Amino acid sequence: MVATAQNLSFVLEGVHQVKFEDRPIPELKNPHDVIVNVQYTGICGSDVHYWDHGAIGQFVVKEPMVLGHESSGVISKVGSAVTSLKVGDHVAMEPGIPCRRCEPCKAGKYNLCEQMAFAATPPYDGTLAKYYSLPEDFCYKLPESISLPEGALMEPLGVAVHIVRQANVTPGQTVVVFGAGPVGLLCCAVAKAFGATKIVAVDIQKPRLDFAKKFAATDVFSPLRSATENAMQIIKENDLGRGADVAIDASGVEPSVHTGIHVLRPGGTYVQGGMGRSEMNFPIMAACTKELNLKGSFRYGSGDYKLAVQLVASGRINVKELISGTIRFADAEQAFKDVKAGKGIKTLIDHTI
Amino acid sequence: MVATAQNLSFVLEGVHQVKFEDRPIPELKNPHDVIVNVQYTGICGSDVHYWDHGAIGQFVVKEPMVLGHESSGVISKVGSAVTSLKVGDHVAMEPGIPCRRCEPCKAGKYNLCEQMAFAATPPYDGTLAKYYSLPEDFCYKLPESISLPEGALMEPLGVAVHIVRQANVTPGQTVVVFGAGPVGLLCCAVAKAFGATKIVAVDIQKPRLDFAKKFAATDVFSPLRSATENAMQIIKENDLGRGADVAIDASGVEPSVHTGIHVLRPGGTYVQGGMGRSEMNFPIMAACTKELNLKGSFRYGSGDYKLAVQLVASGRINVKELISGTIRFADAEQAFKDVKAGKGIKTLIDHTI
Amino acid sequence: MVATAQNLSFVLEGVHQVKFEDRPIPELKNPHDVIVNVQYTGICGSDVHYWDHGAIGQFVVKEPMVLGHESSGVISKVGSAVTSLKVGDHVAMEPGIPCRRCEPCKAGKYNLCEQMAFAATPPYDGTLAKYYSLPEDFCYKLPESISLPEGALMEPLGVAVHIVRQANVTPGQTVVVFGAGPVGLLCCAVAKAFGATKIVAVDIQKPRLDFAKKFAATDVFSPLRSATENAMQIIKENDLGRGADVAIDASGVEPSVHTGIHVLRPGGTYVQGGMGRSEMNFPIMAACTKELNLKGSFRYGSGDYKLAVQLVASGRINVKELISGTIRFADAEQAFKDVKAGKGIKTLIDHTI
Amino acid sequence: MVATAQNLSFVLEGVHQVKFEDRPIPELKNPHDVIVNVQYTGICGSDVHYWDHGAIGQFVVKEPMVLGHESSGVISKVGSAVTSLKVGDHVAMEPGIPCRRCEPCKAGKYNLCEQMAFAATPPYDGTLAKYYSLPEDFCYKLPESISLPEGALMEPLGVAVHIVRQANVTPGQTVVVFGAGPVGLLCCAVAKAFGATKIVAVDIQKPRLDFAKKFAATDVFSPLRSATENAMQIIKENDLGRGADVAIDASGVEPSVHTGIHVLRPGGTYVQGGMGRSEMNFPIMAACTKELNLKGSFRYGSGDYKLAVQLVASGRINVKELISGTIRFADAEQAFKDVKAGKGIKTLIDHTI
Repeated sequence: MVATAQNLSFVLEGVHQVKFEDRPIPELKNPHDVIVNVQYTGICGSDVHYWDHGAIGQFVVKEPMVLGHESSGVISKVGSAVTSLKVGDHVAMEPGIPCRRCEPCKAGKYNLCEQMAFAATPPYDGTLAKYYSLPEDFCYKLPESISLPEGALMEPLGVAVHIVRQANVTPGQTVVVFGAGPVGLLCCAVAKAFGATKIVAVDIQKPRLDFAKKFAATDVFSPLRSATENAMQIIKENDLGRGADVAIDASGVEPSVHTGIHVLRPGGTYVQGGMGRSEMNFPIMAACTKELNLKGSFRYGSGDYKLAVQLVASGRINVKELISGTIRFADAEQAFKDVKAGKGIKTLIDHTI
Repeated sequence: MVATAQNLSFVLEGVHQVKFEDRPIPELKNPHDVIVNVQYTGICGSDVHYWDHGAIGQFVVKEPMVLGHESSGVISKVGSAVTSLKVGDHVAMEPGIPCRRCEPCKAGKYNLCEQMAFAATPPYDGTLAKYYSLPEDFCYKLPESISLPEGALMEPLGVAVHIVRQANVTPGQTVVVFGAGPVGLLCCAVAKAFGATKIVAVDIQKPRLDFAKKFAATDVFSPLRSATENAMQIIKENDLGRGADVAIDASGVEPSVHTGIHVLRPGGTYVQGGMGRSEMNFPIMAACTKELNLKGSFRYGSGDYKLAVQLVASGRINVKELISGTIRFADAEQAFKDVKAGKGIKTLIDHTI
Repeated sequence: MVATAQNLSFVLEGVHQVKFEDRPIPELKNPHDVIVNVQYTGICGSDVHYWDHGAIGQFVVKEPMVLGHESSGVISKVGSAVTSLKVGDHVAMEPGIPCRRCEPCKAGKYNLCEQMAFAATPPYDGTLAKYYSLPEDFCYKLPESISLPEGALMEPLGVAVHIVRQANVTPGQTVVVFGAGPVGLLCCAVAKAFGATKIVAVDIQKPRLDFAKKFAATDVFSPLRSATENAMQIIKENDLGRGADVAIDASGVEPSVHTGIHVLRPGGTYVQGGMGRSEMNFPIMAACTKELNLKGSFRYGSGDYKLAVQLVASGRINVKELISGTIRFADAEQAFKDVKAGKGIKTLIDHTI
Repeated sequence: MVATAQNLSFVLEGVHQVKFEDRPIPELKNPHDVIVNVQYTGICGSDVHYWDHGAIGQFVVKEPMVLGHESSGVISKVGSAVTSLKVGDHVAMEPGIPCRRCEPCKAGKYNLCEQMAFAATPPYDGTLAKYYSLPEDFCYKLPESISLPEGALMEPLGVAVHIVRQANVTPGQTVVVFGAGPVGLLCCAVAKAFGATKIVAVDIQKPRLDFAKKFAATDVFSPLRSATENAMQIIKENDLGRGADVAIDASGVEPSVHTGIHVLRPGGTYVQGGMGRSEMNFPIMAACTKELNLKGSFRYGSGDYKLAVQLVASGRINVKELISGTIRFADAEQAFKDVKAGKGIKTLIDHTI
């Protein structure tokens, strides 16, 4: 951390091998681009997975790569064609830039872009740096009511918004959410904002359920028995009739997936949000004969970040409660250790100190 | 088989225990009901399963039950409120009567009715009888261009129409169908009628693929290796780019399900039509990260039979080619043996001789 | 009003010709039916129109007809097949019974039923009587938190729920509602419950706008100039960018319709909820080149009443504030005079005194 | 027409004031761009309207502007990032370039782009030139089975594909198309390819109906009386029950619009494709009480051109039959005169002679 550092970046070189490197400040390559002076970055499971394993599935870190993708910052420079932002604006940063030209991009599904350049997904550098370049339309201006630390939470909230939109939650529906980590908690909150009247959070950790109940869930459930028994119990305890309208998995583990399928009413909707083993045992015939709608949810797309900001700005979701700790940039690796150890809910790295 | 038989019925009493029983002719209980003199009945895997095992999953034959549910017939009596049918009309018979009052019924999903009375699903008698009672609106008048034997095929065609509708196949799409039995073959034909430009039939039996190619598939594939390799090969051979738009499983077996998930493009749609083991290994993360839409398909619902009749009447689908044999009613059990032995494609029972 | 009256009913015989008639108590014709002892009935514009003109469009009162269709009551008798209700239950009454057999009914659109029997729409009697017969599934049990007078408001709320569902309002959207009568006000409230962040009520009467602002609208607007100028002004005052996401007309008058089309962004949704002249001048090319989605909304259908009850039970909508006056059954005609004179917001007739 | 001309262009300078001007050959400004050597250009009503009036609505020709937007050509140069096209490829040219950054663009509705640069819509030059620059993804490679003159027809076919998609035509539906000019005729053909079983073409010109019947319509109708009478007659002649599933207006005139609304069944879909007077009398209450879905259709968007090419390549639509005349580039103004005079169906300008 030298005083003259221009664009100090937190770089992963190999498993548990990290260093701070002073890199060149990014240039404005496109007149629609801006340069953001990054302020806060949240750490999530995928960041930790790269740090811990050097890879996630087919994505292998082969060259040194800057980590981080859940960030907020202050605009420090704007391209000549930029109209909606000016230097000094506070923004939430959407960290994946699609090609804008392929079929999914033009069909409104840019999260499925063939050539997505996503922060901290090899070979693309992440946001744990002083400066980061983004197109104007991937920076979301934060109103005064949203602080910069909260701005870093727009990323996991965007994930949750995308999941709940995939689930097509509508007012009056009943929703069961599996996993009460940051994304599961935010799914509860978004489902509530979408008008769900019953939101049951399911987790094996009692303190997480306590938090969920306080945060956004209307009810909670600790799984104790088989998936079908758990499902029947959830239905019974919550008076769900033939089953829940929507089940969201934000855990990625097999027992949750099974319970999620069995807890649904015929014609219900299941969304797989959590990442886990690539293959697992699955109750496929229950899904078939109940004519469930099953959907995957991958990152976030058109309108998700915008809505995330609106939900917080309008007071319908309070993300501040999720921030359980802040670590200064110079100690960034500690944040990875804390998240791996399961400490707190959401740890932020503060780039400003 | 006595000459004086009034309503001779083919009754299952236990595993492989069948008998012919003369039952009372059904009464018109509702002014909207009609009595159908059944003429032809196709035999499908589920009929055979009851005969062979006495049960399908939770549905157990506890009392003697008339078998059969794929039937056509001639109207022999009409209730006082019937307006669209008259004695002598030829009809395809939709064999499941919903309650019309529950939430799924009123929401347009009567196949998910809580109290569905489905022919030859315990405790409801089936159509392998001389007479059968149905509400007017579950009898579909056959135009002169559709024969009564073809009329019995409207049931499996209704299943295929429902599957392809669940898949939301639109013109120009590419579709891969797993399993080239009657329903898989009809899915190929319906997908073609819905405008799919590439329809790849997949089966392990070469003669079935030959038939599929002649019948409706544009291409065929024999799986030889692992699911991912098969998927890559199907994509390559058929120039499917990032993958197929739609995959339909009409086989119910695990390798097909895996190949179906892997053969799809991001954002593609998978429909589980085939019945198989209640749980199986499943590539859930591929489904999640590609944001696939997965749907079950269960029987048929609003508009499916009507469209089935239209597709045959307009010449877009030829169901006659699927009829591989006809057995007289008195020899009905032989049809069950033939289907179990995998003889032919679709065996009909002729009630008229 | 004789003490021995069995089923005293308020009957329209001709324009402004009404009388009280003691009719037979309805019988349970179907085991799924219940008899409701009607308690409160709201009066709406269509009731008044029949009283004032003897007809609405093609619906002409040819025989004496009981008026009223916005009612709540207490179950006084249940059919043998009824399972969800018992004598003494308080219910909101959905006053239109579909045939359950036609294509729209089976496709989930029973409000478009070919043979709908709708209360107080000739030739069907309405609910301004002591007793009324309904199928179990058209009675919605009121929880203790909803009073019987509020129960009568479920009808206009059901209308508003249907309109907002037709508009497919989702969280974060901007909505402009034209007309601040009971239905327009309730549309504002439902749009809010559906997550709209900006709800602009438009009316020419200042007191109505004051009420709307207090009740559910985030902003209000008094139209002063041409439709395009009003639209531009609404967009400007409310910072709607290229226009609102949704426009709802609950007024039925031409200037509102024009402003509604012009206030929308490209790709926005317009719903015609208000009834008015059968033909009017319409800015069709703006609708075409902006690719608007325009929908009609007619009564209520699958799930609307259920959601109406939920929205009130969960405290998200307060219908009590709309009740501006209560008139005893014996003075029923006065309610028609008051509504015609534009007195208050919603006048109820109290059958219990 | 000088021998040394580099990029001879057909320029509109004012009402009926046109000239040939030699302009610079366009540069490759973006590595994803290609230069097309234009070969054939069809002339449509909007081209003629600019020539005849100097404006369409708010779009006023203030500076000299090259006309033409329905074109095919041969790739003459490719940018460094182009991968799907090479010099010499035959292509259909989609003539409107969206910004790819605004909300509609990212939501899959690029035809509603705020900053669309559309050929021959002021201030953007059109394709009646020797060379034209386009991004790679707006050029659709023509297979050998589609000739370059046919390639120019992909533009009106794209319009028709977009209209029929807006109408969401599905197999078995009944469709009424108003106006049997090029777009109306192509709508009939596309509706047929989408599986419509009954396609009624309506026009006041008998020869157009004769052509429509031969080309793609299953039935035709000459309007003779009032809109409601015409609608009833169309329903009766074509056995449409409660009405048609879909009505498409490709005429832009008021009597067609009225008949289109009245010919639909409850819940049917109406699409306004034809351009006409900005306001007109409209049967709004019929649209409301039948709960019609009304949509505008504007140009073409995601997937439309691709499907247009597929429909012709697979032989389901024959656009060649629509080409009623070819005029050499040097005589381009004659094409405008012919179209204005209503000569033939589709006149092409041949740039190659």
